[in-house]
Amino acid sequence: MEPLLPYVAELNLVDHHCHGVLRDDVDRTGFEEMLTQADVVSPWGTSLFDSSVGLAVRRWCAPLLDLPPHAPADEYVARRRSLGAAEVNRAFLVASGITTFLVDDGLVPERLVGPSVFTGSREHGVIRLERLAEEVIIEGATGFPDRVRRALERAPAVAAKSIAAYRVGLALSGRRPTDAEVVAAGERWLAAGGGRCADEVLSRFLVWEALERGLPVQFHVGYGDRDLALHRADPSLLSDLLRATEPLGVPVMLLHNYPFHRGAGYLAQVFPHVFVDLGLATHSVGHQASRLLAEALEIVPFGKFLFSTDAFGLAEFYHLGALFFRRALSDFLLAGLRRHAFAEADAVRVAHLIGSENARRAYRLD
Amino acid sequence: MEPLLPYVAELNLVDHHCHGVLRDDVDRTGFEEMLTQADVVSPWGTSLFDSSVGLAVRRWCAPLLDLPPHAPADEYVARRRSLGAAEVNRAFLVASGITTFLVDDGLVPERLVGPSVFTGSREHGVIRLERLAEEVIIEGATGFPDRVRRALERAPAVAAKSIAAYRVGLALSGRRPTDAEVVAAGERWLAAGGGRCADEVLSRFLVWEALERGLPVQFHVGYGDRDLALHRADPSLLSDLLRATEPLGVPVMLLHNYPFHRGAGYLAQVFPHVFVDLGLATHSVGHQASRLLAEALEIVPFGKFLFSTDAFGLAEFYHLGALFFRRALSDFLLAGLRRHAFAEADAVRVAHLIGSENARRAYRLD
Amino acid sequence: MEPLLPYVAELNLVDHHCHGVLRDDVDRTGFEEMLTQADVVSPWGTSLFDSSVGLAVRRWCAPLLDLPPHAPADEYVARRRSLGAAEVNRAFLVASGITTFLVDDGLVPERLVGPSVFTGSREHGVIRLERLAEEVIIEGATGFPDRVRRALERAPAVAAKSIAAYRVGLALSGRRPTDAEVVAAGERWLAAGGGRCADEVLSRFLVWEALERGLPVQFHVGYGDRDLALHRADPSLLSDLLRATEPLGVPVMLLHNYPFHRGAGYLAQVFPHVFVDLGLATHSVGHQASRLLAEALEIVPFGKFLFSTDAFGLAEFYHLGALFFRRALSDFLLAGLRRHAFAEADAVRVAHLIGSENARRAYRLD
Repeated sequence: MEPLLPYVAELNLVDHHCHGVLRDDVDRTGFEEMLTQADVVSPWGTSLFDSSVGLAVRRWCAPLLDLPPHAPADEYVARRRSLGAAEVNRAFLVASGITTFLVDDGLVPERLVGPSVFTGSREHGVIRLERLAEEVIIEGATGFPDRVRRALERAPAVAAKSIAAYRVGLALSGRRPTDAEVVAAGERWLAAGGGRCADEVLSRFLVWEALERGLPVQFHVGYGDRDLALHRADPSLLSDLLRATEPLGVPVMLLHNYPFHRGAGYLAQVFPHVFVDLGLATHSVGHQASRLLAEALEIVPFGKFLFSTDAFGLAEFYHLGALFFRRALSDFLLAGLRRHAFAEADAVRVAHLIGSENARRAYRLD
Repeated sequence: MEPLLPYVAELNLVDHHCHGVLRDDVDRTGFEEMLTQADVVSPWGTSLFDSSVGLAVRRWCAPLLDLPPHAPADEYVARRRSLGAAEVNRAFLVASGITTFLVDDGLVPERLVGPSVFTGSREHGVIRLERLAEEVIIEGATGFPDRVRRALERAPAVAAKSIAAYRVGLALSGRRPTDAEVVAAGERWLAAGGGRCADEVLSRFLVWEALERGLPVQFHVGYGDRDLALHRADPSLLSDLLRATEPLGVPVMLLHNYPFHRGAGYLAQVFPHVFVDLGLATHSVGHQASRLLAEALEIVPFGKFLFSTDAFGLAEFYHLGALFFRRALSDFLLAGLRRHAFAEADAVRVAHLIGSENARRAYRLD
Repeated sequence: MEPLLPYVAELNLVDHHCHGVLRDDVDRTGFEEMLTQADVVSPWGTSLFDSSVGLAVRRWCAPLLDLPPHAPADEYVARRRSLGAAEVNRAFLVASGITTFLVDDGLVPERLVGPSVFTGSREHGVIRLERLAEEVIIEGATGFPDRVRRALERAPAVAAKSIAAYRVGLALSGRRPTDAEVVAAGERWLAAGGGRCADEVLSRFLVWEALERGLPVQFHVGYGDRDLALHRADPSLLSDLLRATEPLGVPVMLLHNYPFHRGAGYLAQVFPHVFVDLGLATHSVGHQASRLLAEALEIVPFGKFLFSTDAFGLAEFYHLGALFFRRALSDFLLAGLRRHAFAEADAVRVAHLIGSENARRAYRLD
């Protein structure tokens, strides 16, 4: 295996989209259920350790728990439990070399805790728009738009996150809804019994309001858990909304994107406010991340690509996300250097843009 | 070229989806018309031997007919005819190292014969659902649902096959149709003159009935002959049906999948009962199969990927499908071993899962 | 880096789809605005020189202007201006080794000039269908169909070009519209104030009329500037129209195709009259073109793939398009030769088919 380029190995990464890590220990079933996007371990498949990410855990995470590389899955989970969640979380978070985290804590917050607890790193909040709406609608549809606005203004967050892909798909209209339309949608929602926010008008409204308040909006795009249909999570479906929101001059981030990462790169090229990443896929595909990142970097301007892990629950994902990202970025740059496609100074510059500078600029972190 | 890993070279493959081979000889035009998914040799293109699969036939099949590698196409076809179909079929089927075949014999059965005739291998039937419906509807729409059920129960098959992709596209509703809806659809069909079964309600009905009877259902997905529109053969369109049929606990197999193989891998990851393969594409892309299989294995659990050739008519496809599959799997595993991504024991285990064990488990072959 | 195969390096290329080059000099902003499909340099990104194509300009174009490889962007643009547009255009066009150009001059013709001015190469016209319609409609909707027919008959062009992807998307019906439908569409257009031709009936009409007159039709497919939505530029959406127009026996060319190049290859395989290329993407992805071309050549018959640059405005794109195409084709053939996938005579034949012979045959250039 090639050595990592030193300026990639040493990057202080900004993880612009991740979640918290588990407070408590998990057993083997619990671990496997968090290892992929599958909710359960299928009786028809074999262990989910039989996967790119499962093999990667045994190879690259085991040594950090003082086990040999490729330790068996049962030994790995047992060792993890014997060390305890706090020690495990600390080990993987420190190893990641991530120094700034943007954390979406909107999913099962009662089981999770922010990564900075273990590392003292900088941590910024990302507010989940649908969750906010679900909290605000409880007081009724009348006044809902203004209550959402006030909540966004008060939110201790540097960005907002939309999971429209899961709720209504990404084919959002470009038209900004009126307050009357939003109230009507809120009334329909309540009349249907409330619960999850799954309404195209509301998804759109939330995005517009966040952007109007200067909050960059992150969209879940592409694959994720089974609640979505992949063809409705194609980033191209956002084209109308991206065209309409461009004049606001506030960044929109397309997260994950697999397997639409090439199409996402197109959007980042043609829309001034659009950024993309390859989170989730980077650690999920394990040692194949190099090919994937190379594809993702084909047409995207290097000033528009971000690093993220999308780590959720298992602290291993911070370590693996950073590890495979560094490996893939180093491989990409080395291949270019070998072909004399660019000079070393360019490689250094691109590494820093993607590893941290783009995120600092886009989220105004400094 | 790298040597094949011995445990890949020696796999006794289960081909979980293929068709029969030609009973009779073909001339050059007839051969070319079966070489790709094109019905005819275009006057605007050149010979279809100018293709990945055409070059592969000349390279890898010619020596089995005692011709030099890269023998000219005319010589190849002439030699093939002089040997006779039976000898040719035997040569390629034996060379494939496939020991178990699941055969869909629903397409031009009068011209084809099952592969086991030439090798004495195990052969299991796959019943084609639309063909079954076309036979059963002849007795009328009244009672059609029950006649379909009885036919499925009697079918000497280990699986059923749906070509909904060709007939109505894969955007099947998740809702199980009532018998009244099925009878009404049958009446519409007969009123329109019968013929090919091309009705979304009926496609859905057939799949539900097969699964209810414990028959795994294979879906044609992705590219195939010109009767389909590729965007309607995207496996993601099956999401609702997959979600709805999951509680039945019976496997669903997504066949071929190219160029949606990454999206198919997502479905196999998140739905416990979904399996995928890369048949047809494996031999069609020839020496490029290694990159393709690597992509297909990015996020799919290794317990959910199957080997198939989708060989149809030309026995060469059994040989090439197995050859390029072994090459691609060996390349995938070697690349991982070189990067220390997994241990050799893992590589051996993954090879056996994909080469035969997953199919044996999913179809309960043992 | 591997040496280029000599028979690839020496190909006299036919560029079957390109645009003119800039008459006048540009400053840095003007240069960057033409470098990618972005209209403007985003204040949120960095310089568009931070991209695959930007790095490629500095690496591969700078030496042709007597600058060192990797010259800084400002120096590059300054040097370009000091030499003047004519000298720059000449240098890059000569370096490209393209000897025949098919030129679509329908986009900002006042700023552009045909490439043959600088090289004395052969140049053939491509008539832009929507532009023709926009000129012809001015005289009214009555008689519009016949006026279009006469204009097509008089057009000094070897092909026609449709930008339906930008105007209405590629989901064109297969049905040939009647003249009455076309006149009605023309009336709606005029009633709406005229302007851009953006009507599905008219797009379809124009394509049918061009093909009826024996003019091959080029379709913009896949990524381009921000006026399109990528999912509506999927070539599979053309399936019905391709099926319907096949009996006319006149070629249809799917241009660019990225990131749908695999799906485009399927269409070229199954429809006798369909050809595909990888223009625009080839120079845009720079040193990564080799992987992309390999993907594009997976299932397409080699008699159905064409070379094009889609160069527009910056003469650099002719040079880079040809350079990366040669590099990618050479890498593809070398990889196959190393794996003994085909013989050298096959490699030579495939190179000539793709580099020029397919275009000569399809457009009847000889």
